[in-house]
This record gives sequence, structure tokens and C-alpha cells, in this order.
Amino acid sequence: MEAWLAEFETALRDRDVERAAALFGVESFWRDLVAFSWNITTVEGRAGVADLLRARLDDADPGKFEVDGEPTEAGDVTEAWIRFETRVGRGAGHLRLKDDGAWTLLTSLRELKGFEEGRPQGVEHELEPGRTSWLERRRTEEQTLGYAEQPYVVVIGGGQGGIALGARLRQLGVPALVLDRHDRPGDQWRKRYKSLCLHDPVWYDHLPYLPFPKNWPVFAPKDKIGDWLEMYTRVMEVPYWSRSEVRSASFDADTKTWSVIVDRDGESVELRPKQLVFATGMSGKANWPTFPGQDVFRGEQHHSSGHPGPEAYRGKKVVVVGSNNSAFDICGALWEHGADVTMVQRSSTHIVKSASLMDIGLGDLYSERAVEAGVTTDKADMIFASLPYRIMHEFQIPLYEQMAERDRDFYARLEKAGFRHDWGDDGSGLFMKYLRRGSGYYIDVGAAELVADGRIKLVQGQVDHLTETAVVLQDGTTLDADLVVYATGYGSMNGWVADLIDQETADRVGKVWGLGSGTTKDPGPWEGEQRNMWKPTQQENLWFHGGNLHQSRHYSLYLALQLKARYEGIPTPVYGLQEVHHTQ
Amino acid sequence: MEAWLAEFETALRDRDVERAAALFGVESFWRDLVAFSWNITTVEGRAGVADLLRARLDDADPGKFEVDGEPTEAGDVTEAWIRFETRVGRGAGHLRLKDDGAWTLLTSLRELKGFEEGRPQGVEHELEPGRTSWLERRRTEEQTLGYAEQPYVVVIGGGQGGIALGARLRQLGVPALVLDRHDRPGDQWRKRYKSLCLHDPVWYDHLPYLPFPKNWPVFAPKDKIGDWLEMYTRVMEVPYWSRSEVRSASFDADTKTWSVIVDRDGESVELRPKQLVFATGMSGKANWPTFPGQDVFRGEQHHSSGHPGPEAYRGKKVVVVGSNNSAFDICGALWEHGADVTMVQRSSTHIVKSASLMDIGLGDLYSERAVEAGVTTDKADMIFASLPYRIMHEFQIPLYEQMAERDRDFYARLEKAGFRHDWGDDGSGLFMKYLRRGSGYYIDVGAAELVADGRIKLVQGQVDHLTETAVVLQDGTTLDADLVVYATGYGSMNGWVADLIDQETADRVGKVWGLGSGTTKDPGPWEGEQRNMWKPTQQENLWFHGGNLHQSRHYSLYLALQLKARYEGIPTPVYGLQEVHHTQ
Repeated sequence: MEAWLAEFETALRDRDVERAAALFGVESFWRDLVAFSWNITTVEGRAGVADLLRARLDDADPGKFEVDGEPTEAGDVTEAWIRFETRVGRGAGHLRLKDDGAWTLLTSLRELKGFEEGRPQGVEHELEPGRTSWLERRRTEEQTLGYAEQPYVVVIGGGQGGIALGARLRQLGVPALVLDRHDRPGDQWRKRYKSLCLHDPVWYDHLPYLPFPKNWPVFAPKDKIGDWLEMYTRVMEVPYWSRSEVRSASFDADTKTWSVIVDRDGESVELRPKQLVFATGMSGKANWPTFPGQDVFRGEQHHSSGHPGPEAYRGKKVVVVGSNNSAFDICGALWEHGADVTMVQRSSTHIVKSASLMDIGLGDLYSERAVEAGVTTDKADMIFASLPYRIMHEFQIPLYEQMAERDRDFYARLEKAGFRHDWGDDGSGLFMKYLRRGSGYYIDVGAAELVADGRIKLVQGQVDHLTETAVVLQDGTTLDADLVVYATGYGSMNGWVADLIDQETADRVGKVWGLGSGTTKDPGPWEGEQRNMWKPTQQENLWFHGGNLHQSRHYSLYLALQLKARYEGIPTPVYGLQEVHHTQ
Repeated sequence: MEAWLAEFETALRDRDVERAAALFGVESFWRDLVAFSWNITTVEGRAGVADLLRARLDDADPGKFEVDGEPTEAGDVTEAWIRFETRVGRGAGHLRLKDDGAWTLLTSLRELKGFEEGRPQGVEHELEPGRTSWLERRRTEEQTLGYAEQPYVVVIGGGQGGIALGARLRQLGVPALVLDRHDRPGDQWRKRYKSLCLHDPVWYDHLPYLPFPKNWPVFAPKDKIGDWLEMYTRVMEVPYWSRSEVRSASFDADTKTWSVIVDRDGESVELRPKQLVFATGMSGKANWPTFPGQDVFRGEQHHSSGHPGPEAYRGKKVVVVGSNNSAFDICGALWEHGADVTMVQRSSTHIVKSASLMDIGLGDLYSERAVEAGVTTDKADMIFASLPYRIMHEFQIPLYEQMAERDRDFYARLEKAGFRHDWGDDGSGLFMKYLRRGSGYYIDVGAAELVADGRIKLVQGQVDHLTETAVVLQDGTTLDADLVVYATGYGSMNGWVADLIDQETADRVGKVWGLGSGTTKDPGPWEGEQRNMWKPTQQENLWFHGGNLHQSRHYSLYLALQLKARYEGIPTPVYGLQEVHHTQ
């Protein structure tokens, strides 16, 4: 391990690209998070390594490689944490060696030299007339930012993603402003249906800088998460405008400045940031399906994202179209409130039991057990990041085989109830579905049992049309309904770009999310990384941020460092800028 | 170490008090925090150990003593962390051995068996009709607690002390209600003068369960602390009534229930808790000195605790009576705002530079350096707790000798300016003054320099009387004044008891705070522990809680466990109940 690193460093210092590339195996992956590429990118094989180095070696000027801690061995793989530096920053990473050389290399930028994060002093121990207090400075900033002073970054969307990024930018001294349409931070969660709890366990969900306390629930209720996000925004001093909705945005290519028109609680404000980040939720815009008769149906119709919760529907007939997370959660809550609920399954869905996912899927990385074994959240994030997407499914498949075995009875009951269940195109389960398409699954926190035992009714088929009082399927099945909920998912995040900027920019930027895996709803070609997320896009100074709490936490670092470098005028030539193969 | 513990355990198991006591040195101290004594108490020498064991051994039934980690040696002392159990709980402690046996033993109760703290699940993964959400349960509790449901504990005062205790009681499942007169949690800090920052560094200040984040300032500004306390109260789900002032309280000895009359934002509410905790600030009630002429003086007069800050006094003449922390802070802020400030020093004061206190006084326990050396906050609290008060000054004196040396020039300048400076009666400095009398010092965050160089004027003497326009000292010195600030300190916390309950109870409970050290303002006899703090008092079911952030954090655990045991009906016979030697 030490020897390999030393040889690698020497080859790099000699600018000998071929020698450096030859240190990698025939099958090999180098994943770089901003450290070498000013991009989030994975290159494959010796040719890929050589290509990255030819483009970036001189400029990155890496050195000081060292092993961090003790290497470990398992089978034919030796692995270790590493540290290194580049011309402008310090990095951390992870290396796996096989007999024929490096198998996987992760390099990530952790901080920019001269801009290290730290603990401020908080007070000057010298008195002087006219000295202002922290509160006065905060108030001045609140009054001037967005008016007399322009933020360098505007973040559209103040959910967990926008807040985490805002906290990092604050800490890095980048003037940024987070905009959100709700009344206060956390309302993104508070306004969802009342029984919602996080589907991921607490160890997976920490935000940057301030982990949840040790008495925090494993699966936090949504209002508690809302309170946490609100207080987090405040104690992290994230500049945040509530009740602020972006009306439009346009980029001036000459001045390289955005004009962002915001409705701030009724007042129209023009912001002129250099950088614009969409943190509007990886789910993107709601997909409202169109069916004949929607205009004549006399009951209520909601998209799942706008469903107000079950309270008003006791004794009512409800048809929920869809069979993924939102559909199950909504069906379950309606059933608990005494509604007569029918789920319309249109295509097969992947379900895992929450406890099984926790134990088998996440337990080695994000659990009390992991923490006790020294796998901190930061370490877990890096271990996860060290697995190239190209081969990630190979690590996932056996986990889901274990879950299938463990919950064999459950799946049998589900099948018997007529539910169409799948494990993903290649059996790789939930997380790959999440990364590839962001849909097609449900983490069972109870509602699947209700489908299995018939308390939530299940029908298979496609909606044909609505009548005044019913949903009619293509096979003629007629489902009487007082309420129809379309749990029909979301479009790509660039739909927001089309709305707020223009269709041309949305098309140029292309589809957001997905890996190009060639599986259902994730068409090829292979991208190697998630499309357009946390990295430069085909639209200069336009960025996408989001994902689950794990991704918001981890990738906000790399996005923040990219923005910080640009703010400080550090050159950031991008290797392998995202190509666009799909517009949505 | 192992051998000593094994012998100790065997002697205890055999109920052989003499053999157990003989394992202690001639000079020895056993400090027990609730584990054996259901009290906070220190016994001295073999006779003291034997006395404690005779009273409590059978009932405590201790066992499972073991060394936790590697013992360390320094000079003739070997020390180690230990763990043990009693009949009802699990404990942790610390042991120092010398040649003739144990020198210091600390035993502390950490949890009660069957009532261990932990991470709740947060969600039931089984749906059922009528299931309530976290928010609904919280709202129900808010509506019923104090009305349809009585809290077991009422805590008067919602500063850091009340909040920390409230968080622990919440976590332990003890129904408690914290009452505070301000508009919202944190106002206790927000309403103080604007340039105030914590005088203790962040590592000393963590609250239970949720440490400050790693980007938190070393010395946090008061408004930022206010925000933290507010959000802490909320995320810890501490039941807390703002705008609620206690009017009176009385104890019914038959039902062993308090009647507490509260003005809750204009509504009079009677609470009927079993336990009543005063967390009204260790400072107690403001001391307003009485001088002839206060009624004829035409300017303003404030006690330091009610001083609104310097903004309105630019160009005004201000006389500040006193020369401790509040006096310096107020003088400094007034000077920064262009007031003409004179400090009246009535008795000598101890000053240390903040940076010196941090490096020399706290650095081994509470600092980045300590954290890197593995001394977590919890460890530091326990190390500090392991030093018996009887000999603590011996450890403190050399630290202050170092500070005197390091800041020699500063003290010379101060003396030259006519300032009377002391290091405590025995040279043991600031922390002993804090523990003994809670006054008589200033941690210099800048204002002492202004006195040293004359920008804040200094006069020595006692106030004789006020005229319409001036403060006149006993030596005839006349100080013209538009404003007089009495930075004249506070009385004992049992003054609040006299106000809210009655004088008889206040006298029976006696003086709060201090060690009985026989030094200035801390009359003997020796108490061994701080009077009446966090432990049973002569008034059944009446408790005092408070102190700085370190004490609020650490001792709230022991107070919470004492209350929890009583709530659960676990017998709690108290060894060595506080005797009362002074009424104030």
C-alpha cells in the first residue's frame, strides 16, 4: 500500500502519465470528487486514468500522498484510507489494491488551502468605541443582503439540501442566500402527511457540522425533523428568505450574472448572483397524469405532493393511482383514518421491510453497530463514495438476496394478494433504483402489510378515464371514488429550469439524476456519475443540488468547494464536462 | 489497581466495613455523587469512609467493580477510571491510589437499572386506526400539562440550568414543567448588555446530549447563546412555559405536594407538583445597596442586573459602584459608547486574562488540545469532580502562579493605576472564589486594560450618600453622575425561597452556595460540598439547581436521577443531609 502510493506519487511528480496509469489494474476505477477534475467524475481502466492525468496533472500538481491509519485486507483486496494534497487543496481518499494494481481509487477535495474551516474566536478581547455586536452585524446583513449587497450564490429551495449547502457556504465565507416558498424552514416536512417519519435511520441523516443528538429517534417524525431544520438554519446562520418564490431567472453571458426575480412575501425583488443552484428536490416537478374525464369527475383530485392528509376522508372512497412510496404512505394513513382505500398498481414495485433494510442494507455503514466499530458518518460516506457506480450493483445484489430470504413469508403473502413485486432489473434492489431512476420502490413501514392482508384493496391495471363518480380502468373495472390521489411521481429537475429560465436552457442542461445504466427509466449511455448533480452543467454557473439527507450532507461539501473556488478566483478548469443525451 | 478494587469489592460483599475503610489512606477522600449516599457528599479519612459504609452499605449492595481503560501513574499516584453497580443503578468513578491506600475515590450514579436512557425508535412500523402522530401527542401534552395533568417536578427558572435539567427529566420520562418569566427561552442572555460574550470557552459550555457544533465560536456572543438555548429547548422537547412568573409556593406536609401559583401571561394557574426546583440563577437576588440620597438623586439608578446597556448614555457621566465581572463589563460597554465612566472600587478584586485562564486554568480539561488528547467533555467533568474540594485549592494555586508570571506586566500596570488586586485569600484564584463565594473576580476580556490605562476612571472608597447630581464617597470625593450603576452583586439563592415561600423555610434551608472554607464571604464550618446545590435540603422536596454551564450540564444528571428515583418510588434514604449553619 505504502509502496504503491510512493510509486504513484513519484510517477505523478515526474509527470509520467503512462507509468502512473500502469499502476492501475486492467479493471480499475478512479473516482474523483473535485480534487483533480474540478468535477465529479469516474474514469475507468488505465486509458481512463491516463486521460484524466493528461488533462489535469500539471495543473493539479498532487503530492504528499500518505496512508491514513492501518490498511486492511480481505480476500485479494487490500484497502486503506489515504491523504494527499494538490496545488490548491488538501484531499482525502480511499484505495483498493489487487494483484494487478489499483482496483478502485477515490480522491476527494476536503479543503482549499488558505480557506480552511475552523472554530471562530467569537469575540475580540479588545474594546474599542463603535464596536458592533454579533446581533447588530446579523441584523445589518439581513437588511442588506439581496438589496444593497448581492449574494454570490442564490440557492432555490430551502429543504434539507438547500440548508446543508447554505450552512457550508456560510462556513466558507461565500455570500449566499437560500430562497424558499414556505412560511419557515422545515415546512417542507411539516406540510406532508401526518404519520410520516423518516424512512432512513438517524445515522444516515445527519446534517453537516451538527449531528443529531444521541437521544434522537431512529426514525424521526416529520414535524420533529421540521423543527430541527428550522433551528439548524438559525444556529448555522444560514441567510434564508422564507415566503419567497422565484418567478424567473435569466443569465447574462457577458457579465456572467444571473437575474433572479423573486416574489418575497408579496414584494418583487431582483437578485443578481453569479451562481444559481437549483435545490428544488431531486423529485423535480410533480407528474400530473392526464386522463379523459378528469374535468367531469365530481370528487377531489390530488397529486401525492399536494395531498393534505387523511383527516377529511373518513368513510370516503379513495382511489390511489400508483404503488410506490407515496402511494403506500398515503394509502396507509387514509386506512388508519377509516377511509375505504383502493390502490391501483400500474407497474411492478420493489418493496423492502424497513428493519431489513436497516440491518442488512445499511447496518455496516450507518447504525449504532457501525458507530461502535469506528465507522463514523464521515467514514461511512467515504466508504460509500469509494464504490464505483459501475460495479455498485454487484455489492448490492447479495444484500437483497439476504432480505428476500429473511422476509420470504412477507413476499409470499404480498404475491398472494396479487401485488406485482420486483427487485430491480438486475436484482440490485432499492438503492440502485434510487440512484438510477429515483422511483419504483417502497420502504415498508407498515402499509405493505395492509395490502398483503387486503385491508387496503389492490387492483392491477391502467387508468382509462374518469366518470363523474369513478375511476375506470382499461379492462373496464370501475372504482367508485370520492377522492383520487395521483401518486404518479415526478419529472426530472430540469423541468424547474424550463419553468424558471426557459425550455432551451432546460434542454441544453438535459436530464438530471440517473446513471445511464440502461435499466428501466434510466436510459444509456453510461454516465459514470449521477447526471448533473453537484457538478458543472452545460449551462455556465448553473448547478443542481439535492438528494436524500446522506447525499445532501456529503455532496454539499463538494458543491460548496466548487463555488468557493470560483468565488475566490481560483481557476477551476473542468475535466469531462457532463454530456447531454436526454432532455428529460 | 485491579487488586485494590478486588479487595474493596470483597470487603464490601462481606459487609466488612473496617476492612473496606482500611483500604483507604490516612489522608483520603471519598466523593459520592448519589450512587451510595443518595446525596452529594464527601467523606474524609478511614473514619469517614466507615461512617458512610455503615449507613449505606447494606442498602447500596455494590458490586461488579472494574477498571475502565488503562490505569496511569504520575509520581506516587496511580489513577484509573472505574465502573461498578449498586442494587438500583450503574455507576462510574475514578480512583487514585497512593502507597498507604486509596487517596481519592469518586463514585457517581450514571443510570438507574430499568430506566436506562437510549435512542427511541420514533415510529411504530405497524399501522392502526386512530394512531396519533408525534405532533398530536406534543400538542395534547402542551394543552394538558399543568391543567388536566400535573407535572411531578416544577422547575422555577428557564435559563441554562432549568433547561438542562428539563432535558434530562424529559429523557428520563419524568413529567416536569419549566417556568420562566421571559418571552422566550434564551432571553435570559439576550436581555443582557450587547457586547457580552461567554467568558468560558465552548468546550466548557456544552449542554447535555447535544454538544455545540464544531464551527461554534470559542466565546459565543450572548444572542447566539440565546438562540441556541431556544432551539435546544425545542428540539429536546422540554415542557416550558414562557411569560410565566411564580407568585408563591407552599408545601403541604401531609400530601407532600407543592402548591405553586403562577402568573402565566396574565392567567393565574395553580400547579401541584411533588418536587420543586429553584433554578433561578446561582447569583440569587440582586443586592440593592441602600445609601442616603438615593431618593433625591435626579439621574437614573440601575442594579447591574437591570442595566439596559450603554446605547442611551453617550456623553453621559456614569458612576459604576463595584469592581467585579458585571462592573467591568458594564464600564467597558459604556466606554465603547462614549460615556464618561468612573468605577468605584470598594474592595479588592481578582482579575485574570481570559486567554491565560483558558490556556493555564482550563486547557488540560476543556480545550481543543484536551479533546485531541481524548479528554472528552464528559471525561473532563469527571476528572474535575474527582478532586475533593478540601484539597482543590492546592491544585489551583500553582496555576495562578503561572498566570501571575505570564501576565506580570499587566498586573503591574493595573497596580500602577491604583487598582487593588488579589488572588483570593490563599492565592488559589478565580475558580475557588467562584465555588466559595461566587464573586470577587473578573475574567478580563478587555475592560481591565481600560482601567489600567485610565480610559475608565478608577476611584477607591465607599459610597457615603448621593446628592441630586452626584455620588459622594466617605472621603468626600464627589463624582458627578447622570447614571449610577450598582454592580453590587447578589444574595444567596434562598432569598428567592423567602420571597416565594416564606422566611421560615428560607432560614431552615439556609445559605445556598459556598463550601464553608472560612475564607472571605464563605464562613465555616467546612461543608465538603457546595451548600444545598443539587441535593436534598432541610425542606423536603425542595431543590436548588444552577451554576455555570459546566455545572448545569454535569450536576443536572445527579439531580435528575434523584428526582427520577423518587418519581419511580425507589427508596432514597439520604446519608449526611445538609446541616445549616448560616441563613444567608
